[in-house]
Amino acid sequence: MITCLDHIGIAVHSIEDTLPIYTQLLGLKLVKLEDAKQHGIKAALLAVGETNIELIEPLDKESPISKFLEKRGQGIHHIAFKVDNIEKSLDQLKAKGVTLIDKKPRIGFEGGKIAFLHPKSTGNILIELCQK
Amino acid sequence: MITCLDHIGIAVHSIEDTLPIYTQLLGLKLVKLEDAKQHGIKAALLAVGETNIELIEPLDKESPISKFLEKRGQGIHHIAFKVDNIEKSLDQLKAKGVTLIDKKPRIGFEGGKIAFLHPKSTGNILIELCQK
Repeated sequence: MITCLDHIGIAVHSIEDTLPIYTQLLGLKLVKLEDAKQHGIKAALLAVGETNIELIEPLDKESPISKFLEKRGQGIHHIAFKVDNIEKSLDQLKAKGVTLIDKKPRIGFEGGKIAFLHPKSTGNILIELCQK
Repeated sequence: MITCLDHIGIAVHSIEDTLPIYTQLLGLKLVKLEDAKQHGIKAALLAVGETNIELIEPLDKESPISKFLEKRGQGIHHIAFKVDNIEKSLDQLKAKGVTLIDKKPRIGFEGGKIAFLHPKSTGNILIELCQK
């Protein structure tokens, strides 16, 4: 069901301030930069092999990303695995007793289907599944 | 210089307790499980596409992984990028003002050369470079 690691989501206070670390210091290529206002975030995608680094900046104080930053500071917020059939994956995980944050897939800021699993079922790691 | 994401390092209290989340629930394949006593850790590598999930369990209380777990609980400890020439990469990063934890590469538990960059230079993310 999981085919690869789609991205690592990193919560940042400011994409403008953080982007040069990944582009100028580490030499990664920026592939997308956009305001996803309906999701309350601004995001930057940087390519690294078959996966991406996703920098996420909150656009408002009610965003879960704002709460994460207040509590922990900048850091890795989630990891996202690409799956070939997200509905089937969610059904299988639910049958195995995994608590789902999103019981049904929703549309992510990149346009594909996404769903988060609850960290209490995954050893305290916030895991996203995505299908593109 | 960076060719791909080599692995995501996740600090766990117990590999035995955590492994089934990745193998049985998520269906990832365990590719390596070993005690690296000289590094003070036990580690499990799980394949996902071209990258790996590395579960890290501390073997003693003085390990930096023990301190991480005490302070933050289970979570993502570091991300590791594969580079083609680690000495050259460290020289370039140092010239750009990046603070290095390892000024010269050392041998990691998998046998390749590794070096960590200081989170104060990388937006609070612990980044490892590795060459295999």
